[in-house]
Amino acid sequence: MTLSARNRLTGTVTNVETSGLTAEVTIELDDGQEVTSVITANSVERLGIEEGSEATAVVKATEVMVDA
Amino acid sequence: MTLSARNRLTGTVTNVETSGLTAEVTIELDDGQEVTSVITANSVERLGIEEGSEATAVVKATEVMVDA
Amino acid sequence: MTLSARNRLTGTVTNVETSGLTAEVTIELDDGQEVTSVITANSVERLGIEEGSEATAVVKATEVMVDA
Amino acid sequence: MTLSARNRLTGTVTNVETSGLTAEVTIELDDGQEVTSVITANSVERLGIEEGSEATAVVKATEVMVDA
Amino acid sequence: MTLSARNRLTGTVTNVETSGLTAEVTIELDDGQEVTSVITANSVERLGIEEGSEATAVVKATEVMVDA
Amino acid sequence: MTLSARNRLTGTVTNVETSGLTAEVTIELDDGQEVTSVITANSVERLGIEEGSEATAVVKATEVMVDA
Repeated sequence: MTLSARNRLTGTVTNVETSGLTAEVTIELDDGQEVTSVITANSVERLGIEEGSEATAVVKATEVMVDA
Repeated sequence: MTLSARNRLTGTVTNVETSGLTAEVTIELDDGQEVTSVITANSVERLGIEEGSEATAVVKATEVMVDA
Repeated sequence: MTLSARNRLTGTVTNVETSGLTAEVTIELDDGQEVTSVITANSVERLGIEEGSEATAVVKATEVMVDA
Repeated sequence: MTLSARNRLTGTVTNVETSGLTAEVTIELDDGQEVTSVITANSVERLGIEEGSEATAVVKATEVMVDA
Repeated sequence: MTLSARNRLTGTVTNVETSGLTAEVTIELDDGQEVTSVITANSVERLGIEEGSEATAVVKATEVMVDA
Repeated sequence: MTLSARNRLTGTVTNVETSGLTAEVTIELDDGQEVTSVITANSVERLGIEEGSEATAVVKATEVMVDA
Protein backbone atom coordinates (compact mmCIF):
# COMPACT_ATOMS: atom_id res chain seq x y z
CA MET A 1 0.00 0.00 0.00
CA THR A 2 1.74 3.14 -1.19
CA LEU A 3 -1.04 5.73 -1.47
CA SER A 4 -0.91 8.86 0.70
CA ALA A 5 -4.61 8.59 1.66
CA ARG A 6 -4.47 7.46 5.26
CA ASN A 7 -7.94 6.09 5.82
CA ARG A 8 -8.50 2.52 4.68
CA LEU A 9 -11.53 0.76 6.12
CA THR A 10 -11.94 -2.84 5.05
CA GLY A 11 -15.22 -4.70 4.98
CA THR A 12 -17.69 -6.54 2.77
CA VAL A 13 -19.70 -5.05 -0.10
CA THR A 14 -23.37 -5.35 0.86
CA ASN A 15 -24.97 -3.30 -1.93
CA VAL A 16 -24.14 -1.94 -5.39
CA GLU A 17 -26.57 0.30 -7.26
CA THR A 18 -25.87 1.77 -10.67
CA SER A 19 -27.81 4.42 -12.58
CA GLY A 20 -26.39 6.10 -15.67
CA LEU A 21 -22.81 7.22 -15.01
CA THR A 22 -23.08 6.96 -11.23
CA ALA A 23 -22.88 4.08 -8.76
CA GLU A 24 -23.37 3.73 -5.02
CA VAL A 25 -21.40 1.07 -3.20
CA THR A 26 -22.11 0.14 0.42
CA ILE A 27 -19.40 -1.53 2.48
CA GLU A 28 -20.15 -3.03 5.89
CA LEU A 29 -17.28 -2.95 8.38
CA ASP A 30 -16.61 -5.69 10.91
CA ASP A 31 -18.21 -3.68 13.72
CA GLY A 32 -21.44 -3.39 11.71
CA GLN A 33 -21.00 0.25 10.74
CA GLU A 34 -21.54 1.04 7.04
CA VAL A 35 -19.65 3.22 4.58
CA THR A 36 -21.36 4.43 1.40
CA SER A 37 -19.28 5.46 -1.60
CA VAL A 38 -20.40 7.29 -4.73
CA ILE A 39 -18.09 6.46 -7.63
CA THR A 40 -18.51 6.17 -11.39
CA ALA A 41 -20.31 3.19 -12.88
CA ASN A 42 -17.19 2.82 -15.01
CA SER A 43 -15.08 2.09 -11.91
CA VAL A 44 -17.57 -0.46 -10.58
CA GLU A 45 -17.30 -2.39 -13.85
CA ARG A 46 -13.56 -1.96 -14.18
CA LEU A 47 -12.89 -3.24 -10.64
CA GLY A 48 -15.59 -5.93 -10.72
CA ILE A 49 -17.16 -4.67 -7.50
CA GLU A 50 -20.15 -6.83 -6.47
CA GLU A 51 -22.10 -7.84 -3.39
CA GLY A 52 -20.26 -10.22 -1.13
CA SER A 53 -16.75 -9.32 -2.19
CA GLU A 54 -14.23 -7.80 0.20
CA ALA A 55 -13.47 -4.13 -0.41
CA THR A 56 -11.72 -1.21 1.25
CA ALA A 57 -13.16 2.30 1.57
CA VAL A 58 -10.35 4.82 1.05
CA VAL A 59 -10.66 8.45 2.21
CA LYS A 60 -8.12 11.28 2.22
CA ALA A 61 -7.77 12.67 5.76
CA THR A 62 -8.69 16.22 4.68
CA GLU A 63 -12.13 14.92 3.60
CA VAL A 64 -13.05 13.68 7.08
CA MET A 65 -15.05 15.96 9.39
CA VAL A 66 -15.52 15.37 13.10
CA ASP A 67 -18.80 15.55 15.01
CA ALA A 68 -18.04 15.75 18.71
CA MET B 1 -29.04 14.11 12.80
CA THR B 2 -30.18 15.95 9.68
CA LEU B 3 -27.04 16.34 7.58
CA SER B 4 -26.96 14.89 4.06
CA ALA B 5 -23.49 13.34 4.55
CA ARG B 6 -24.26 9.64 4.83
CA ASN B 7 -21.13 8.27 6.43
CA ARG B 8 -20.99 8.55 10.20
CA LEU B 9 -18.46 6.32 11.96
CA THR B 10 -18.50 6.54 15.73
CA GLY B 11 -15.54 5.75 17.96
CA THR B 12 -13.14 7.09 20.53
CA VAL B 13 -10.59 9.88 20.00
CA THR B 14 -7.15 8.32 20.52
CA ASN B 15 -4.92 11.17 19.36
CA VAL B 16 -5.10 14.95 18.74
CA GLU B 17 -2.13 16.84 17.30
CA THR B 18 -2.18 20.55 16.56
CA SER B 19 0.37 22.65 14.67
CA GLY B 20 -0.39 26.18 13.56
CA LEU B 21 -3.80 26.34 11.89
CA THR B 22 -4.04 22.59 11.33
CA ALA B 23 -4.99 19.64 13.53
CA GLU B 24 -5.02 15.87 13.07
CA VAL B 25 -7.59 13.87 14.99
CA THR B 26 -7.48 10.06 15.16
CA ILE B 27 -10.66 8.15 15.97
CA GLU B 28 -10.58 4.43 16.74
CA LEU B 29 -13.69 2.49 15.75
CA ASP B 30 -15.07 -0.42 17.76
CA ASP B 31 -13.54 -2.96 15.37
CA GLY B 32 -10.08 -1.47 15.94
CA GLN B 33 -9.83 0.30 12.57
CA GLU B 34 -8.72 3.94 12.73
CA VAL B 35 -9.94 7.07 10.94
CA THR B 36 -7.67 10.13 10.70
CA SER B 37 -9.19 13.55 10.12
CA VAL B 38 -7.42 16.78 9.22
CA ILE B 39 -9.46 19.78 10.37
CA THR B 40 -8.63 23.28 11.55
CA ALA B 41 -7.13 23.83 15.00
CA ASN B 42 -9.99 26.30 15.44
CA SER B 43 -12.55 23.48 15.18
CA VAL B 44 -10.66 21.29 17.66
CA GLU B 45 -10.83 24.09 20.23
CA ARG B 46 -14.40 25.07 19.42
CA LEU B 47 -15.68 21.49 19.78
CA GLY B 48 -13.45 20.59 22.74
CA ILE B 49 -12.10 17.49 20.99
CA GLU B 50 -9.65 15.59 23.20
CA GLU B 51 -8.25 12.11 23.73
CA GLY B 52 -10.70 9.72 25.30
CA SER B 53 -13.88 11.47 24.22
CA GLU B 54 -16.40 9.87 21.90
CA ALA B 55 -16.52 11.34 18.40
CA THR B 56 -17.97 10.60 14.99
CA ALA B 57 -16.06 10.79 11.70
CA VAL B 58 -18.37 12.26 9.04
CA VAL B 59 -17.65 11.83 5.31
CA LYS B 60 -19.71 12.80 2.26
CA ALA B 61 -20.27 9.71 0.07
CA THR B 62 -18.69 11.35 -3.00
CA GLU B 63 -15.38 11.58 -1.06
CA VAL B 64 -15.09 7.83 -0.55
CA MET B 65 -13.09 5.76 -3.03
CA VAL B 66 -13.16 1.97 -3.23
CA ASP B 67 -10.16 -0.34 -3.43
CA ALA B 68 -11.33 -3.76 -4.56
CA MET C 1 -24.31 22.26 16.14
CA THR C 2 -21.19 20.21 16.82
CA LEU C 3 -19.76 19.44 13.39
CA SER C 4 -16.22 20.57 12.55
CA ALA C 5 -17.25 21.92 9.11
CA ARG C 6 -17.12 25.67 9.61
CA ASN C 7 -19.21 26.94 6.71
CA ARG C 8 -22.94 26.96 7.30
CA LEU C 9 -24.97 29.16 4.96
CA THR C 10 -28.67 29.25 5.71
CA GLY C 11 -31.37 30.05 3.17
CA THR C 12 -34.43 28.72 1.39
CA VAL C 13 -34.58 25.75 -0.98
CA THR C 14 -35.65 27.09 -4.38
CA ASN C 15 -35.12 24.00 -6.53
CA VAL C 16 -34.75 20.23 -6.16
CA GLU C 17 -34.03 18.02 -9.17
CA THR C 18 -33.56 14.27 -8.96
CA SER C 19 -32.33 11.86 -11.62
CA GLY C 20 -31.36 8.30 -10.79
CA LEU C 21 -29.08 8.22 -7.74
CA THR C 22 -28.22 11.93 -7.92
CA ALA C 23 -29.99 15.12 -6.83
CA GLU C 24 -29.28 18.82 -7.21
CA VAL C 25 -30.54 21.16 -4.49
CA THR C 26 -30.46 24.95 -4.89
CA ILE C 27 -30.52 27.14 -1.78
CA GLU C 28 -31.02 30.89 -2.03
CA LEU C 29 -29.33 32.95 0.67
CA ASP C 30 -30.83 36.12 2.14
CA ASP C 31 -28.60 38.33 0.00
CA GLY C 32 -29.93 36.65 -3.16
CA GLN C 33 -26.80 34.59 -3.87
CA GLU C 34 -27.40 30.92 -4.63
CA VAL C 35 -25.66 27.74 -3.51
CA THR C 36 -26.06 24.52 -5.51
CA SER C 37 -25.45 21.17 -3.86
CA VAL C 38 -25.11 17.77 -5.48
CA ILE C 39 -26.07 15.03 -3.03
CA THR C 40 -27.61 11.57 -3.33
CA ALA C 41 -31.30 11.22 -4.12
CA ASN C 42 -31.38 9.00 -1.04
CA SER C 43 -30.44 11.97 1.19
CA VAL C 44 -33.07 14.23 -0.40
CA GLU C 45 -35.75 11.66 0.49
CA ARG C 46 -34.37 10.86 3.91
CA LEU C 47 -34.22 14.54 4.94
CA GLY C 48 -37.48 15.52 3.21
CA ILE C 49 -35.81 18.37 1.31
CA GLU C 50 -38.30 20.26 -0.85
CA GLU C 51 -38.84 23.68 -2.39
CA GLY C 52 -39.75 26.36 0.11
CA SER C 53 -38.22 24.75 3.15
CA GLU C 54 -35.35 26.32 5.07
CA ALA C 55 -32.00 24.59 4.65
CA THR C 56 -28.33 25.12 5.40
CA ALA C 57 -25.50 24.53 2.94
CA VAL C 58 -22.55 23.01 4.83
CA VAL C 59 -19.01 23.07 3.39
CA LYS C 60 -15.68 21.99 4.94
CA ALA C 61 -13.23 24.90 4.83
CA THR C 62 -10.64 22.91 2.84
CA GLU C 63 -13.17 22.62 -0.02
CA VAL C 64 -13.48 26.38 -0.51
CA MET C 65 -11.29 28.10 -3.12
CA VAL C 66 -10.82 31.85 -3.38
CA ASP C 67 -11.03 33.92 -6.56
CA ALA C 68 -9.46 37.31 -5.90
CA MET D 1 -16.30 33.17 -15.83
CA THR D 2 -15.72 29.83 -17.50
CA LEU D 3 -15.09 27.42 -14.62
CA SER D 4 -17.45 24.48 -14.10
CA ALA D 5 -17.67 25.08 -10.33
CA ARG D 6 -21.14 26.52 -9.90
CA ASN D 7 -20.96 28.15 -6.50
CA ARG D 8 -19.49 31.62 -6.46
CA LEU D 9 -20.21 33.71 -3.37
CA THR D 10 -18.84 37.23 -3.45
CA GLY D 11 -18.01 39.32 -0.41
CA THR D 12 -15.25 41.12 1.45
CA VAL D 13 -12.16 39.54 3.01
CA THR D 14 -12.37 40.16 6.76
CA ASN D 15 -9.50 38.01 7.99
CA VAL D 16 -6.35 36.32 6.65
CA GLU D 17 -4.20 34.10 8.88
CA THR D 18 -1.09 32.30 7.68
CA SER D 19 0.97 29.64 9.44
CA GLY D 20 3.61 27.63 7.62
CA LEU D 21 2.21 26.32 4.33
CA THR D 22 -1.42 26.91 5.27
CA ALA D 23 -3.70 29.97 5.28
CA GLU D 24 -7.24 30.65 6.44
CA VAL D 25 -9.22 33.31 4.61
CA THR D 26 -12.56 34.59 5.90
CA ILE D 27 -14.98 36.24 3.47
CA GLU D 28 -18.08 38.06 4.72
CA LEU D 29 -21.06 37.99 2.36
CA ASP D 30 -23.48 40.88 1.97
CA ASP D 31 -26.07 39.23 4.21
CA GLY D 32 -23.51 38.98 7.03
CA GLN D 33 -22.88 35.25 6.72
CA GLU D 34 -19.21 34.20 6.63
CA VAL D 35 -17.31 31.71 4.51
CA THR D 36 -13.95 30.35 5.71
CA SER D 37 -11.49 28.94 3.20
CA VAL D 38 -8.33 26.94 3.87
CA ILE D 39 -5.87 27.36 0.99
CA THR D 40 -2.09 27.35 0.69
CA ALA D 41 -0.09 30.33 1.95
CA ASN D 42 1.44 30.31 -1.53
CA SER D 43 -1.95 31.14 -3.09
CA VAL D 44 -2.61 33.96 -0.61
CA GLU D 45 0.67 35.58 -1.65
CA ARG D 46 0.25 34.88 -5.34
CA LEU D 47 -3.26 36.40 -5.45
CA GLY D 48 -2.48 39.25 -3.07
CA ILE D 49 -5.42 38.38 -0.79
CA GLU D 50 -5.71 40.81 2.14
CA GLU D 51 -8.27 42.20 4.54
CA GLY D 52 -10.68 44.63 2.96
CA SER D 53 -10.38 43.40 -0.61
CA GLU D 54 -13.30 41.91 -2.51
CA ALA D 55 -13.10 38.17 -3.08
CA THR D 56 -15.26 35.28 -4.23
CA ALA D 57 -15.54 31.93 -2.48
CA VAL D 58 -15.73 29.18 -5.12
CA VAL D 59 -17.06 25.70 -4.30
CA LYS D 60 -17.75 22.70 -6.56
CA ALA D 61 -21.37 21.59 -6.13
CA THR D 62 -20.38 18.04 -5.12
CA GLU D 63 -18.59 19.49 -2.06
CA VAL D 64 -21.74 21.06 -0.62
CA MET D 65 -23.77 19.12 1.94
CA VAL D 66 -27.28 20.06 3.04
CA ASP D 67 -28.53 20.26 6.62
CA ALA D 68 -32.32 20.31 6.57
CA MET E 1 -6.21 33.49 -13.85
CA THR E 2 -6.96 34.50 -10.28
CA LEU E 3 -8.31 31.32 -8.68
CA SER E 4 -6.50 29.85 -5.66
CA ALA E 5 -6.65 26.28 -7.07
CA ARG E 6 -3.08 25.63 -8.12
CA ASN E 7 -3.44 22.71 -10.48
CA ARG E 8 -4.35 23.60 -14.04
CA LEU E 9 -3.70 20.94 -16.66
CA THR E 10 -4.49 21.97 -20.21
CA GLY E 11 -5.35 19.58 -23.01
CA THR E 12 -8.02 18.58 -25.52
CA VAL E 13 -11.48 17.22 -24.72
CA THR E 14 -11.64 13.69 -26.15
CA ASN E 15 -14.95 12.51 -24.70
CA VAL E 16 -18.12 13.94 -23.14
CA GLU E 17 -20.85 11.67 -21.78
CA THR E 18 -24.02 12.93 -20.15
CA SER E 19 -26.67 11.00 -18.22
CA GLY E 20 -29.35 12.75 -16.20
CA LEU E 21 -27.76 15.45 -14.01
CA THR E 22 -24.22 14.10 -14.35
CA ALA E 23 -21.54 14.36 -17.03
CA GLU E 24 -18.10 12.85 -17.50
CA VAL E 25 -15.53 14.86 -19.44
CA THR E 26 -12.20 13.35 -20.54
CA ILE E 27 -9.28 15.66 -21.28
CA GLU E 28 -6.12 14.35 -22.95
CA LEU E 29 -2.91 16.15 -21.99
CA ASP E 30 -0.06 16.76 -24.40
CA ASP E 31 1.95 13.85 -22.99
CA GLY E 32 -0.93 11.48 -23.70
CA GLN E 33 -2.09 11.10 -20.09
CA GLU E 34 -5.83 11.54 -19.52
CA VAL E 35 -7.82 13.37 -16.87
CA THR E 36 -11.47 12.45 -16.23
CA SER E 37 -13.79 14.96 -14.60
CA VAL E 38 -17.29 14.40 -13.22
CA ILE E 39 -19.27 17.64 -13.28
CA THR E 40 -22.94 18.52 -13.67
CA ALA E 41 -24.60 18.22 -17.08
CA ASN E 42 -25.67 21.83 -16.46
CA SER E 43 -22.02 22.97 -16.49
CA VAL E 44 -21.26 21.05 -19.68
CA GLU E 45 -24.10 22.90 -21.43
CA ARG E 46 -23.33 26.26 -19.86
CA LEU E 47 -19.64 26.14 -20.88
CA GLY E 48 -20.28 24.52 -24.27
CA ILE E 49 -17.80 21.71 -23.58
CA GLU E 50 -17.51 19.34 -26.54
CA GLU E 51 -15.05 16.91 -28.13
CA GLY E 52 -12.15 18.57 -29.84
CA SER E 53 -12.19 21.81 -27.87
CA GLU E 54 -9.32 22.88 -25.65
CA ALA E 55 -10.02 22.69 -21.91
CA THR E 56 -8.21 22.88 -18.60
CA ALA E 57 -8.67 20.45 -15.71
CA VAL E 58 -8.58 22.40 -12.43
CA VAL E 59 -7.91 20.68 -9.09
CA LYS E 60 -7.41 22.14 -5.61
CA ALA E 61 -4.08 20.92 -4.18
CA THR E 62 -5.73 19.39 -1.09
CA GLU E 63 -7.65 16.99 -3.40
CA VAL E 64 -4.49 15.44 -4.86
CA MET E 65 -3.11 12.26 -3.32
CA VAL E 66 0.33 10.84 -4.03
CA ASP E 67 1.15 7.24 -4.88
CA ALA E 68 4.88 6.69 -4.45
CA MET F 1 -3.89 -0.87 -9.52
CA THR F 2 -7.31 -1.50 -8.06
CA LEU F 3 -8.42 1.88 -6.70
CA SER F 4 -11.62 3.48 -8.04
CA ALA F 5 -9.97 6.92 -8.44
CA ARG F 6 -9.57 7.23 -12.19
CA ASN F 7 -6.98 9.96 -12.51
CA ARG F 8 -3.38 8.82 -12.20
CA LEU F 9 -0.76 11.21 -13.54
CA THR F 10 2.79 9.94 -13.34
CA GLY F 11 5.87 12.14 -13.20
CA THR F 12 8.89 13.11 -11.14
CA VAL F 13 8.87 14.76 -7.71
CA THR F 14 10.54 18.17 -8.11
CA ASN F 15 9.83 19.69 -4.71
CA VAL F 16 8.82 18.62 -1.19
CA GLU F 17 8.15 21.18 1.53
CA THR F 18 7.07 20.28 5.04
CA SER F 19 5.83 22.55 7.84
CA GLY F 20 4.22 21.17 10.97
CA LEU F 21 1.60 18.56 10.06
CA THR F 22 1.36 19.62 6.41
CA ALA F 23 3.45 18.95 3.30
CA GLU F 24 3.36 20.20 -0.27
CA VAL F 25 4.62 17.85 -2.98
CA THR F 26 5.18 19.03 -6.57
CA ILE F 27 5.20 16.46 -9.37
CA GLU F 28 6.31 17.39 -12.89
CA LEU F 29 4.64 15.47 -15.69
CA ASP F 30 6.41 14.45 -18.89
CA ASP F 31 4.84 17.32 -20.84
CA GLY F 32 6.27 19.83 -18.35
CA GLN F 33 2.97 20.59 -16.58
CA GLU F 34 3.09 20.47 -12.77
CA VAL F 35 0.74 19.01 -10.18
CA THR F 36 0.88 20.23 -6.57
CA SER F 37 -0.44 18.03 -3.78
CA VAL F 38 -1.10 18.95 -0.16
CA ILE F 39 -0.89 15.86 2.05
CA THR F 40 0.13 15.20 5.64
CA ALA F 41 3.80 15.32 6.62
CA ASN F 42 3.15 11.88 8.08
CA SER F 43 2.42 10.47 4.61
CA VAL F 44 5.53 12.07 3.10
CA GLU F 45 7.65 10.28 5.71
CA ARG F 46 5.74 7.02 5.55
CA LEU F 47 6.05 6.80 1.73
CA GLY F 48 9.61 8.17 1.58
CA ILE F 49 8.64 10.85 -0.96
CA GLU F 50 11.66 12.93 -1.99
CA GLU F 51 12.91 15.05 -4.88
CA GLY F 52 13.89 13.06 -7.92
CA SER F 53 11.77 9.99 -7.24
CA GLU F 54 8.96 8.93 -9.54
CA ALA F 55 5.45 9.48 -8.18
CA THR F 56 1.85 9.43 -9.33
CA ALA F 57 -0.72 12.13 -8.55
CA VAL F 58 -4.07 10.46 -7.87
CA VAL F 59 -7.36 12.40 -8.05
CA LYS F 60 -10.98 11.21 -7.77
CA ALA F 61 -12.91 12.30 -10.87
CA THR F 62 -15.52 14.20 -8.82
CA GLU F 63 -12.72 16.51 -7.56
CA VAL F 64 -11.78 17.72 -11.05
CA MET F 65 -13.34 20.93 -12.39
CA VAL F 66 -13.20 22.04 -16.01
CA ASP F 67 -12.27 25.49 -17.27
CA ALA F 68 -13.37 25.79 -20.89
